[in-house]
Amino acid sequence: MKDVKDYILDIENFPKEGVVFRDITSLLKDPEGLRMTIDKMDDILKDTDFDVIAGAESRGFIFGMPIAYNLNKPFIPIRKKGKLPRETVSKSYDLEYGQATIEIHKDAIKPGTKVVIADDLIATGGTMKAAVDLMEELGGEVVKIVCVIELTSLGGRELLKDYDLETVVKYD
Amino acid sequence: MKDVKDYILDIENFPKEGVVFRDITSLLKDPEGLRMTIDKMDDILKDTDFDVIAGAESRGFIFGMPIAYNLNKPFIPIRKKGKLPRETVSKSYDLEYGQATIEIHKDAIKPGTKVVIADDLIATGGTMKAAVDLMEELGGEVVKIVCVIELTSLGGRELLKDYDLETVVKYD
Repeated sequence: MKDVKDYILDIENFPKEGVVFRDITSLLKDPEGLRMTIDKMDDILKDTDFDVIAGAESRGFIFGMPIAYNLNKPFIPIRKKGKLPRETVSKSYDLEYGQATIEIHKDAIKPGTKVVIADDLIATGGTMKAAVDLMEELGGEVVKIVCVIELTSLGGRELLKDYDLETVVKYD
Repeated sequence: MKDVKDYILDIENFPKEGVVFRDITSLLKDPEGLRMTIDKMDDILKDTDFDVIAGAESRGFIFGMPIAYNLNKPFIPIRKKGKLPRETVSKSYDLEYGQATIEIHKDAIKPGTKVVIADDLIATGGTMKAAVDLMEELGGEVVKIVCVIELTSLGGRELLKDYDLETVVKYD
């Protein structure tokens, strides 16, 4: 029987020399890989008491939305700066080169809202930590983080050690 | 009974003076609105014979993925330039200010593949036309375009008149 890893292509030297990129487009291109992945994420959440799923632009949308649909929860899109039409809260964070800023509407999360954050990948955890900070700034409680891929040697789990992080597949 | 339009907020003067922005984050924030919208998109496709669903970064991911899951089809993410790790085909198109370029992997679509493209909104249709061109460049056949919102006065339907476009809600 195939495993989720069997659908993920390993691309050498992308986006730069020496890096192995884990390509999820090959997983999405196979309906069995797509379905297996979403089902495993749904399953990770089956005993979690939560109110909303949030996902960051843009690959967090890919995995967050089907889970929201399947589990009958709202979906909160965390967007790049300037895309949301109403009053927002924002959080800037460091990338390898430069900075990025993500935002959500101020009314997206109420104090006490139990939040799950979904994404495709945890590497250093920087983007996820910024997403967590956004939720907490509005009084939300991040009860679970669920990702497809974890790159274990890059430290994301340590950065997010105060949170319940579950991932479908792991690579060194 | 509520309709999809009841979940969409109208935001005056965004992104600029005189424009009414149709905000889908309010629809996504209500699990009934989210479910009703996806169910209607699934329903639009129920008699369509197709092989894959494609959606453009990033709001095409929001609506394309749950449909792909529900209908057991592959999902092809159409991405902004430089995000995909393998050999791509790309298409540039004009925006109000400047240009944008979208890409898919060259092996994402085979000649004869029957493609559905999903998105949140049809306005002028420029982004959708570029997405259609990408599919056709690889020999794909766009058998249906399905969007949540149509802004009827902006000409998208005319630009896409050779294609089968269905939308869930319409605004002048």
